[in-house]
Amino acid sequence: MSEKPIGIFDSGVGGLTVLKALREALPRESFVYLGDTARLPYGNKSASTILRYTEECCTFLAGQNVKAIVIACNSASAQAFPYITHRFHFPVLGVVEAGVEAAMKATRNKKIGVIGTKATIASEIYSRELKKRDGDVKVTSIATPLFVSLVEEGLTAGPIAEKIAAHYLRPLPEMDTLILGCTHYPLLKETIQKTVGSQISLVDSAESMAVKLVSVLKEKALLYEGEKESSLVCYSSDMPQSFGALATQILGVDCGEIRKAELV
Amino acid sequence: MSEKPIGIFDSGVGGLTVLKALREALPRESFVYLGDTARLPYGNKSASTILRYTEECCTFLAGQNVKAIVIACNSASAQAFPYITHRFHFPVLGVVEAGVEAAMKATRNKKIGVIGTKATIASEIYSRELKKRDGDVKVTSIATPLFVSLVEEGLTAGPIAEKIAAHYLRPLPEMDTLILGCTHYPLLKETIQKTVGSQISLVDSAESMAVKLVSVLKEKALLYEGEKESSLVCYSSDMPQSFGALATQILGVDCGEIRKAELV
Repeated sequence: MSEKPIGIFDSGVGGLTVLKALREALPRESFVYLGDTARLPYGNKSASTILRYTEECCTFLAGQNVKAIVIACNSASAQAFPYITHRFHFPVLGVVEAGVEAAMKATRNKKIGVIGTKATIASEIYSRELKKRDGDVKVTSIATPLFVSLVEEGLTAGPIAEKIAAHYLRPLPEMDTLILGCTHYPLLKETIQKTVGSQISLVDSAESMAVKLVSVLKEKALLYEGEKESSLVCYSSDMPQSFGALATQILGVDCGEIRKAELV
Repeated sequence: MSEKPIGIFDSGVGGLTVLKALREALPRESFVYLGDTARLPYGNKSASTILRYTEECCTFLAGQNVKAIVIACNSASAQAFPYITHRFHFPVLGVVEAGVEAAMKATRNKKIGVIGTKATIASEIYSRELKKRDGDVKVTSIATPLFVSLVEEGLTAGPIAEKIAAHYLRPLPEMDTLILGCTHYPLLKETIQKTVGSQISLVDSAESMAVKLVSVLKEKALLYEGEKESSLVCYSSDMPQSFGALATQILGVDCGEIRKAELV
């Protein structure tokens, strides 16, 4: 048993959708969240730059004495996950793996789609990880970078969001399951579902990440089962004030003062 | 007279529209261009972070032995320009000033609009600079951040671009002149003109920057009037290959190998 906090990071506020699911599944655990808002977005950067930023974020969280790290950013998880896991003496979990496992459970016809940023799609990580689990799976990958800007502009529904969704997703290649491979996309879920039709299952990896984290903490005997009240500390590398306002809105609880993280 | 090159930087490829105008106006001058693609975009970062990035870019260019620096990024120019000009022993010019001067010449009714990123609009720099020149000027400022993503996605015309332009610019407050306060926006000029109507003059600051640079170089006796062939060297802080392809397309000349700039 460990009462140390769990670290979680994303390039911005998107990972807070994952943090929310983790806090619901693990109400006794404490968390340290880091949003690298000084360098967001990661999705249009190169693999080597994303790897460097991810290393810096993980090192920062390791310095906060965490017992595990959740990489909530799909681009970081896609580019850096295999290189980063062995550098720390505690578990490091990537959001990609969680999404892949949920999609494998959801699909019936083994035809799976993935949408994500340019970096995530170019990495082909989802396709590789899905085929590793079942060689017969057919994967269709579509880069949908404008979805991130839509969420950041608060335009998650309405005619502009629908037109952009149709631009990317209509006609949709044959599939029964679509992985939302970017933490921003769950906020566009209704628009995306309306565009692709109700027969397609949308996989939002936040909940599957919660299931995975519980099982890993149990396996490593790190789950906290004491009575101490849980805590939440949030850092961002830029604009802590506007980060705080968005965080409070997404999490539905007051996040207190957001601290400034100096990453470089 | 100086045969040293002129430095110019932007957060990405947008500033190449400015470089193109400068090369046309000053065909004998050599240029060093820097795109800070590892940290783009600047427009959604805080004033202090943009100032730090701008200082690092200017210091990098100073290290290339330039005789002047043009800040082609509106967000950098808006946030950092007043602080940065006195730190170097050579002239540093900002794209904002050039746009303001061109708008003052274009307007007849003294009602001027400005569109830009969140950072540029929040800085109120255009409004302040316009009013400094004429206290009677009425300024309407509109943040249009999705325009940047549209350009980066190559969606500069068609129904999606038109819907987003109408979302931001219709109905348009009374004005006769509209400053395109972001180097990406000239690439959306036709769509914007169609949305606001032909009676509105659009001010693209690239050409006015060229006029300004010529006059400053003359004034400081820095203009190169020799016979040596001009050169162009491009640096980017990330993804030099894809930067090179876009640069060649925008400039209409082969930029040669793009070098990687290590800024931090």
